[in-house]
Amino acid sequence: MNDRTATDAPVATLGELDTPCLVLDAERMERNIARLRRRLDGCNVSLRPHLKTAKSIEVARCVMTSPAGPATVSTLEEATQFAAAGVRDIIYAVGIAPSKLARVLRLRAEGVDLAVVLDTVEQAKAVARASLETGVRIPALIEIDCDGHRSGVPPADGSRLVEIGRIIERGAELRVVLTHAGGSYSARGVDALRQCAEAERASVVAAANILREADLPCPVVSAGSTPTAHNAANLTGVTEVRAGVFVFFDLVMAGVGICGIEDIALSVLGTVISRPKPGLCVTDSGHKACTQDHGNPGVRDVAGASVLFLSDEHATISIAADSQVKVGDRILLWPSHIDPTINLHDVFYVLDGEAVVDTWPITARGYSEQRRKE
Amino acid sequence: MNDRTATDAPVATLGELDTPCLVLDAERMERNIARLRRRLDGCNVSLRPHLKTAKSIEVARCVMTSPAGPATVSTLEEATQFAAAGVRDIIYAVGIAPSKLARVLRLRAEGVDLAVVLDTVEQAKAVARASLETGVRIPALIEIDCDGHRSGVPPADGSRLVEIGRIIERGAELRVVLTHAGGSYSARGVDALRQCAEAERASVVAAANILREADLPCPVVSAGSTPTAHNAANLTGVTEVRAGVFVFFDLVMAGVGICGIEDIALSVLGTVISRPKPGLCVTDSGHKACTQDHGNPGVRDVAGASVLFLSDEHATISIAADSQVKVGDRILLWPSHIDPTINLHDVFYVLDGEAVVDTWPITARGYSEQRRKE
Repeated sequence: MNDRTATDAPVATLGELDTPCLVLDAERMERNIARLRRRLDGCNVSLRPHLKTAKSIEVARCVMTSPAGPATVSTLEEATQFAAAGVRDIIYAVGIAPSKLARVLRLRAEGVDLAVVLDTVEQAKAVARASLETGVRIPALIEIDCDGHRSGVPPADGSRLVEIGRIIERGAELRVVLTHAGGSYSARGVDALRQCAEAERASVVAAANILREADLPCPVVSAGSTPTAHNAANLTGVTEVRAGVFVFFDLVMAGVGICGIEDIALSVLGTVISRPKPGLCVTDSGHKACTQDHGNPGVRDVAGASVLFLSDEHATISIAADSQVKVGDRILLWPSHIDPTINLHDVFYVLDGEAVVDTWPITARGYSEQRRKE
Repeated sequence: MNDRTATDAPVATLGELDTPCLVLDAERMERNIARLRRRLDGCNVSLRPHLKTAKSIEVARCVMTSPAGPATVSTLEEATQFAAAGVRDIIYAVGIAPSKLARVLRLRAEGVDLAVVLDTVEQAKAVARASLETGVRIPALIEIDCDGHRSGVPPADGSRLVEIGRIIERGAELRVVLTHAGGSYSARGVDALRQCAEAERASVVAAANILREADLPCPVVSAGSTPTAHNAANLTGVTEVRAGVFVFFDLVMAGVGICGIEDIALSVLGTVISRPKPGLCVTDSGHKACTQDHGNPGVRDVAGASVLFLSDEHATISIAADSQVKVGDRILLWPSHIDPTINLHDVFYVLDGEAVVDTWPITARGYSEQRRKE
């Protein structure tokens, strides 16, 4: 926790916080960050953390190797917010829409080395055209599809790869290839995860080699997901690793086997607001405070309790028939998927044990520069 | 659209908006509001719209019967934001946590007639105690469980109802009973919906009668959900109706049969950012822009298209094998559940046809008064 000093007094305890809210166990977070750093030490790759997970400059500073980056983002609003806080080396790792190039150019004009990602000839032409028109060579990486999960050029499609590469190279700046083993989120067991990691590495390295054989430059070979970063046996040919959720972990990552429940650094704090019958309680932490896109959250520290369902502002929780849980009690939920859950909150309340020692804003939410001019 | 004038020029067209974003068809919204108003005319009930859906003062002013209310909210942050915009008559319709009474009292001290909701003896005691300690009689409504859906006192539990009523009456102000037919969201067909509406009405009226027989005052008998408001054949004994989603509708409401797809007034606009193979396209409107808590969104205006899955910042969409959809094209999604989807955005872009004629901020998001003091 790089902005805490020994003189900071606790501002509150867990029991005093307004609920629902997001509480961050800083010690677990630091342990998680150290674990991935140790893992990558000696692998001859740099870490380009994905800041879409935390959307917070304070967390970004804990996880980046320097205050200027490198970093990965998923929206131009994240790029804008992190750039304003001094991050200078950013990949916007979601396929570029041609209509967003004007905003990319504005950020580059402010001194941010912002690179874009693409996988079609149309995008390559749009990036090359925007670069030629403005005299600013926009750096572009070609997205490689390593597992048929979503988007990207399959590494077997060498002709498309080279066609895209040549279009970029003529107008923009080819920084080359990037892939994301999204399929690894459904892998189970170390062997399956190692296979995902190797497939990811092999795909992106194969694509880089195809481009090199076509005399196209290939300085960056970027791969990454938290499961594969933690399980790759070999990263030969990869120059950088991107990962995001490793900072906090969540129930999905625990299910994949990348962490234990005790490693999850974030919880949603709620208050019991109803006891409709024995065996049931209701808290104020519904799905506007804790998303359920990857299943219900888990209940922390209450033996045998589980979430039955979430409403907008209610969690209905099954508890033991003789449970003494009462109105006003606090209950912590483990998020199933931490990224969209963080995206619902304004701040992290940073805990040292039960004491809230800091409040970190979650600033990089939303999408648009266009706000109402009041 | 109460703040638009004939001189407003379009600020953009649909094709010029940054994506993903939320677009509001104002004409459909006005039609939906008029429809519920017509429906309630002559029923001798007032409409207390639920502002948790829109979280926007501009929408609130379209739907409230006066700029001061009445209104319903689901968080104290919503109460705070709407109070700041002049709303004076508010029910906070989520069970009160005793720790939130200080904030309730602050809002009341600012001149807001803010009432709370509860269903336990413990909450009643906390509200009575806070009222006695401060000399401010906090108005409280007892939540009635009309369908076993979530929380509330079952109307058959007359002794608990009267016990809670007496505790409130001694210290605070008993405004009495409120229920919400949450179960109506899974009802199908007019007969089933009418039964839900009648069960809701009968429960809350029965509870009111039990309190009246115990010589407790019962000025307010509040019921509501969009499905029951649109289907009640009889509202005798009910004094006010709460409903929220009727303003916009969504796929859940279309599934219940309360509206047609063509009545849905909000869509999420995205841009195609990848065409990984024939029959598939990827847009930038993932579940951080369009929630999937009640299932995937629908695809608007593209024949035969459907969402396969959402990632944080990607929607992977199945399209016809010979579809000419290309990178840069715009695709509109119908949200499955509009409340949490609105909660992800900063603004509504207000459309008149293809022209964006206004931008309305969505200000009442989040929960906490405590923000970092920079």
